[in-house]
Amino acid sequence: MSLPAAVLAELRAVLPAARVVAGDADRLAGYGRDESEMGEHPPDVAVLVESAEEVRAVFAVASRHRVPVVPVSARTGKSGGSLALHGGIAVSVERMNRILEISSGDLVARVQPGVVTGVLQAEVEKLGLFYPPDPSSLETCTIGGNVAENAGGPRALRYGVTREYVLGLTAVVPTGEILRLGHRSIKGVAGYDLTGLFVGSEGTLGIVTEILLQLLPRPRHAATALVVFASVEDAARAVSRVLAEGVVPRCLELLDDGCLAAAAKGSPGRFPPGAGAALIVETDGNDADAVFAELVRVAELVRGDASGEVLVAQGEAQRRELWEARRKMSSDLKLLHPMKRSEDVAVPRSRIPEMIARSREIGARHRVTVASYGHAGDGNLHVNVLFDRADELPRVDEATAEILRTAVDLGGTITGEHGVGLTKRDFLEYEQGPEVVAVQRRLKAVFDPLGILNPGKVFPPALGA
Amino acid sequence: MSLPAAVLAELRAVLPAARVVAGDADRLAGYGRDESEMGEHPPDVAVLVESAEEVRAVFAVASRHRVPVVPVSARTGKSGGSLALHGGIAVSVERMNRILEISSGDLVARVQPGVVTGVLQAEVEKLGLFYPPDPSSLETCTIGGNVAENAGGPRALRYGVTREYVLGLTAVVPTGEILRLGHRSIKGVAGYDLTGLFVGSEGTLGIVTEILLQLLPRPRHAATALVVFASVEDAARAVSRVLAEGVVPRCLELLDDGCLAAAAKGSPGRFPPGAGAALIVETDGNDADAVFAELVRVAELVRGDASGEVLVAQGEAQRRELWEARRKMSSDLKLLHPMKRSEDVAVPRSRIPEMIARSREIGARHRVTVASYGHAGDGNLHVNVLFDRADELPRVDEATAEILRTAVDLGGTITGEHGVGLTKRDFLEYEQGPEVVAVQRRLKAVFDPLGILNPGKVFPPALGA
Repeated sequence: MSLPAAVLAELRAVLPAARVVAGDADRLAGYGRDESEMGEHPPDVAVLVESAEEVRAVFAVASRHRVPVVPVSARTGKSGGSLALHGGIAVSVERMNRILEISSGDLVARVQPGVVTGVLQAEVEKLGLFYPPDPSSLETCTIGGNVAENAGGPRALRYGVTREYVLGLTAVVPTGEILRLGHRSIKGVAGYDLTGLFVGSEGTLGIVTEILLQLLPRPRHAATALVVFASVEDAARAVSRVLAEGVVPRCLELLDDGCLAAAAKGSPGRFPPGAGAALIVETDGNDADAVFAELVRVAELVRGDASGEVLVAQGEAQRRELWEARRKMSSDLKLLHPMKRSEDVAVPRSRIPEMIARSREIGARHRVTVASYGHAGDGNLHVNVLFDRADELPRVDEATAEILRTAVDLGGTITGEHGVGLTKRDFLEYEQGPEVVAVQRRLKAVFDPLGILNPGKVFPPALGA
Repeated sequence: MSLPAAVLAELRAVLPAARVVAGDADRLAGYGRDESEMGEHPPDVAVLVESAEEVRAVFAVASRHRVPVVPVSARTGKSGGSLALHGGIAVSVERMNRILEISSGDLVARVQPGVVTGVLQAEVEKLGLFYPPDPSSLETCTIGGNVAENAGGPRALRYGVTREYVLGLTAVVPTGEILRLGHRSIKGVAGYDLTGLFVGSEGTLGIVTEILLQLLPRPRHAATALVVFASVEDAARAVSRVLAEGVVPRCLELLDDGCLAAAAKGSPGRFPPGAGAALIVETDGNDADAVFAELVRVAELVRGDASGEVLVAQGEAQRRELWEARRKMSSDLKLLHPMKRSEDVAVPRSRIPEMIARSREIGARHRVTVASYGHAGDGNLHVNVLFDRADELPRVDEATAEILRTAVDLGGTITGEHGVGLTKRDFLEYEQGPEVVAVQRRLKAVFDPLGILNPGKVFPPALGA
């Protein structure tokens, strides 16, 4: 669509000219890209907001002219949630990047949505505090994006995902209300959990302008080990054994043979070559001896399934190197095949081996390589379909569809971390059924009756649209 | 209101006669009482449902005749959520009390809403598993009620509240849909968090007929200690010190001098006499030495503030006795004064001493006794206004109102555990403001456009109603 002529003038009436980006195709193209590989969908104009009141003013302009509004932050999302699919106005929170408060007494942090996750973590850790959610993109992604997607990460096994840390937030909704939700107390059950409803709503209900996060005391010690296995089945059995024995480390990350082959190219020397699978295990706590003892306990439990020694990271530098290799996995896989479709299904814990085996079988049938890694402890697997040329895309699409449906058939979900966005909207009904999807459309309409906020995301396009 | 004549006949057409309770005033009176001390509000008829389909059929009858429907379970609620304020049909889930499945492999339990919380806990513990939420009423309350109220308990400090354990649920909504929400995987971010929206919605959005709960491995050991203090300020300072040092025990329960006086009457010998306050501290884990070491660490941290020795419970029997005394606190307080108004505010952790001090000051000003106990670690305090005669109620009402507003003014909430229900609906706007309350009314209308489900609860009556 092309923007009605009056829109630009009205935006410039409510925001300084320097914060209304229009006519600069290169810059707008940047706002139209993310990490989803869904191509480029630039907005017609981008506005750099600095307050809830400014967001409200932008919604007023957009409502008058029925123009789409798309919230954008660091654009590290993997499901296309911030792409301006139908053009319109991109509302960027990049300038709202201040940590407003860190309170040791209340164990909370108050932040603007554009704060980089890793920056917040470093700041709270200086004070002996801890913000657990650790998506792989933590050096570049922002808390606002994490809230929109309900981001997780390896430490979710012990510490849970973003939703568990959001005590409150300020959200501006298309109808113009500035909703101040939640409270500074850890507990609270007054009214519906609107805070929780906004977390993970993928920028389709409102634009979040401030977030109140719960913090924890920082665990003083962490210990990390690498265990290799002859096969992914052996590794999955080891994971089940650890959990069945009542041990919940903070991370239990699985990498299959394809991932290890990619890591051998991208992070040589980090993982033993030739293994069928590997587990990264991490324990934490305040007592160094107890942390190490728990790691030893895990090592004892997995030894029977492992194909080699349990390698304990010696010192902080080795720990960092190991995690850096794990976080680079998504890009290293492209060293095997230049193109990649990355899924993030989650299944019940007992179904992990079956999910991996069936993904491989699906890949073989469609002549694409499938490599899986992820948070085995909580059943969240990143299943990657690797390929070489765009003409393979029809086969990739079919393989991907089967992988997503398999996760649902096993009692799981099409997305454990990345969100539905654009990439998975056609599979939402397969998971939830038409009635649950219809209810969600009605909920969205409570906040966005004109349907101007992030249209085309999460829900499959309505018939005739 | 009186029930339209056709309603009874239509209910008997969809349910066996034995499960439609009408005309029996004594039995109906029972369905009209709970633990809120809001008096008796019997329904016109009670139906004992056994399936989601039956609930749907009841909603169809109620919708045709615009008759109120009130979900009831064990009626242990403290906010009046299950009272049939406007008469109508009570839908009791008491016959839906089966544990459908406990899976060690997936660490989940699937239950009907009428399962008693303590029964579920005992069953999963037999298998080495753990369901943490532990409201004081756990021997009688049910999972369905816990889900409706988002119940907490002492162990919430380390383990969180009910919401954190509900992976999915089946909810029948007044418009007739049977919504199957959530998934069996631990993680999942597809669509809005409808599961979370239903948890804590106090039976105003739908009637839950099945619940899928996440379980944890059972910690093998727990250790409990009692510490006494000269004043509640000293105890609150000790709590802050423990948390600031990065130690998060599973419970940190505070009792003030009034509570200790009540316990001296109701549970003689359990607490040392004459103290100004006490803390119950409990640590847990899989390694007995580490669990005891953590308790010792807490003891070291609080010793400087304490007025006596740290008394470690010797063996399981002593632990149980201590907790039994704690759980009886709500009723023991009536040994001081026969009448009681019980609030459950929550405040930011640093504000605990101020909340307690201001509650006492408010009590003194209104000539009522105030005694506080609760989950000091997470700022959730049960502030009790004690009195002797009904003619004191105007002063009690004023004191209560000031206590609730004080919690909000300190950054907290009017309810940390019990819900808004009937007892606190007039204070919801003070906490959340009119816009947030208005949005919630619109959300309710998505599921209940006729306003037949649990009318008069949570939200203040609309003008003219």
